[in-house]
Amino acid sequence: MSELSHTPEPPYYAVIFTSRRAEQHEGYGEMADRMVELAGEQPGFLGIESVREGAVGITVSYWSSLEAIDGWRKHTEHREAQRIGRDAWYDEYSVRVARVQRARSFERVED
Amino acid sequence: MSELSHTPEPPYYAVIFTSRRAEQHEGYGEMADRMVELAGEQPGFLGIESVREGAVGITVSYWSSLEAIDGWRKHTEHREAQRIGRDAWYDEYSVRVARVQRARSFERVED
Repeated sequence: MSELSHTPEPPYYAVIFTSRRAEQHEGYGEMADRMVELAGEQPGFLGIESVREGAVGITVSYWSSLEAIDGWRKHTEHREAQRIGRDAWYDEYSVRVARVQRARSFERVED
Repeated sequence: MSELSHTPEPPYYAVIFTSRRAEQHEGYGEMADRMVELAGEQPGFLGIESVREGAVGITVSYWSSLEAIDGWRKHTEHREAQRIGRDAWYDEYSVRVARVQRARSFERVED
């Protein structure tokens, strides 16, 4: 994934998912791609940014409300991915739910 | 950087910095390392996680208060880095300030 998200004016919500992957992580790539795709279909989804450098990954998804986040957290297919994540793919992760209250952006304008 | 941050119980604050780097980015690496080091010396700093995959990077720093974030934003050496970032290193970036209100973590326990 290589695009930045263009979110609306705050307030909205961010889920910050940081992870350290296990050495063995068969099937991880396809599932990660599938989860990005599936998240994008959920009500209240505003955008997602995901970067991995070696074992460490950061994925930030943006949502219109806490209800939207709870809906996504409880999605059946996502729950299954969470289970496999704990059983196999991740040595460590954190999920932080945060309310975005200020945002600013910069984009280069070519001369 | 390859470690996840171990932050205290919420509430606290996160600064989500997402960026797309320009093709030319001489001097970027050293400055990025210096900013991570300098951030860690600021009052109210709780942790930082930073990952880059090609042009796209996500850095999340954690802070005890909005005042701590404002202090860091206005730090002289950081301001200079921000200026060079806009002039040279980044084609695009966003800075989002968010209040972390829920967090959970997982860590694998070896048998």
